[in-house]
Amino acid sequence: MATLLKGAAAAAALNERTAAVIEGLKAKGITPALGILRVGERPDDLSYERGAVKRCDALGIAVKKYLLPEDVSQEKLMETIKGINEDAAIHGALIFRPLPKHLDDEAVRQALLPEKDVDGITDGSLLGVFAGVPKGFPPCTAQACMEILEQAGIDPKGKEAVVVGRSLVVGRPAAMLLLQRNATVTICHTRTQDMEGVCRRAQILIVAAGRAGVIGADHVSAGQTVIDVGIHVGEDGKLRGDVDFQAAEPIVEAITPVPGGVGAVTTAVLASHVVEAASRSVRS
Amino acid sequence: MATLLKGAAAAAALNERTAAVIEGLKAKGITPALGILRVGERPDDLSYERGAVKRCDALGIAVKKYLLPEDVSQEKLMETIKGINEDAAIHGALIFRPLPKHLDDEAVRQALLPEKDVDGITDGSLLGVFAGVPKGFPPCTAQACMEILEQAGIDPKGKEAVVVGRSLVVGRPAAMLLLQRNATVTICHTRTQDMEGVCRRAQILIVAAGRAGVIGADHVSAGQTVIDVGIHVGEDGKLRGDVDFQAAEPIVEAITPVPGGVGAVTTAVLASHVVEAASRSVRS
Repeated sequence: MATLLKGAAAAAALNERTAAVIEGLKAKGITPALGILRVGERPDDLSYERGAVKRCDALGIAVKKYLLPEDVSQEKLMETIKGINEDAAIHGALIFRPLPKHLDDEAVRQALLPEKDVDGITDGSLLGVFAGVPKGFPPCTAQACMEILEQAGIDPKGKEAVVVGRSLVVGRPAAMLLLQRNATVTICHTRTQDMEGVCRRAQILIVAAGRAGVIGADHVSAGQTVIDVGIHVGEDGKLRGDVDFQAAEPIVEAITPVPGGVGAVTTAVLASHVVEAASRSVRS
Repeated sequence: MATLLKGAAAAAALNERTAAVIEGLKAKGITPALGILRVGERPDDLSYERGAVKRCDALGIAVKKYLLPEDVSQEKLMETIKGINEDAAIHGALIFRPLPKHLDDEAVRQALLPEKDVDGITDGSLLGVFAGVPKGFPPCTAQACMEILEQAGIDPKGKEAVVVGRSLVVGRPAAMLLLQRNATVTICHTRTQDMEGVCRRAQILIVAAGRAGVIGADHVSAGQTVIDVGIHVGEDGKLRGDVDFQAAEPIVEAITPVPGGVGAVTTAVLASHVVEAASRSVRS
């Protein structure tokens, strides 16, 4: 039976490190603060927001909400972001997306200062993750995969890592984070021939395909660590991942559950980014 | 015997396409123009400059040189770049680096507008290549590898591509360009375990290790296309690449020579970028 890599354990370990940094900041009179900008009331956003606020409260990170109506104008939205940028007391901002269709997503993404971009949505953050420089922050989900590896005691150095999926939100950033940790990294995707064979040779397999259950018994092999980024609601109403857990679990060495895997780490990563942003603001 | 992938053929094909675009631009009264900014007189720079000027002259691209003394001040250098940015008649700029040590390379890189960054040195260009968006330009050497594949009629789609080296100048951008062309891409480097095995499974092997002759008979396999980005002066004064050509050539399907491979395509790429920059300036 495979080791179950529960997100809660990785989150707890990360939260502990974050709490220690917060203590140091508070000793200097700084309370790290997260701004949450939400347009409308999408259930997914509200659910993630509750988790983020709970996490911040528990750690002693202040939260300021910027709530805008669904029909907000682009101008008002941009003004709000400008306000966040200019408010030195807000160290990081989470902007819920996708935005309603009448709004210009690209303009919104780029309006936020990279140094406050704790969710990794700006070009500055993407560049930071590609170039391996501390500019902005990696997207929380990509970073959450690394936290799970860290908690499991798996050092990617020299290992064969395969990332399924090449989105800018997970696949590509996860590949770059693995590369920074000195893994040999392969990125595959829908055009990959012999996806099974490529996945099987991985020692670390990160699956961010965005389609339920596409990675099955033929894609995995003994000794692998499998991290499943997918989250989908099945026909039975239950949550499942990109990996067919029942098929893969008996074969691999370690695997994340869905739910309770990567998704359980993202708010801890978000909180750690807010605290890192606050720390950087002191150093600069 | 392997097919020899000579850079001259890829350069000629690219130049032909570039010439056609120039014709269209000239019909609209636009002469594409490259600014060359050189500090001091490093022999490497002078040599590349001669090649670039020759290429531009042959194609009908105007060249304006900005020549600064080796002891130029940072202020004067930044002013010069600002002048290039503001001059609508200069569509792209090549800034020779490394700069003398008293100058701030990072500041220089970022001072250039990405839309004029035909050599792919700015953060904007790096982001463009990572995100796969037409912002700035990929570094010429990384792009030159793609031109050689194109000329050889090799479509990376679905193929196993391995890139040896992870620099921001070649390795990482080349990996991203291959990914955009739908290859399954592996990035390996000095920390890779079993470099031989990883390289052998490539259908397309791009070597940008930066060390002479590190890829030998054990790293290659039948059917492979090998592109050697390295260029080193051997003890005998002869140029050689990162690949041990004598060892690899009898095994693989196709291979670039050194010299006369990738290096022979870079000025054609540079010229094509200037023309693309001019075209974009018309569209915008």
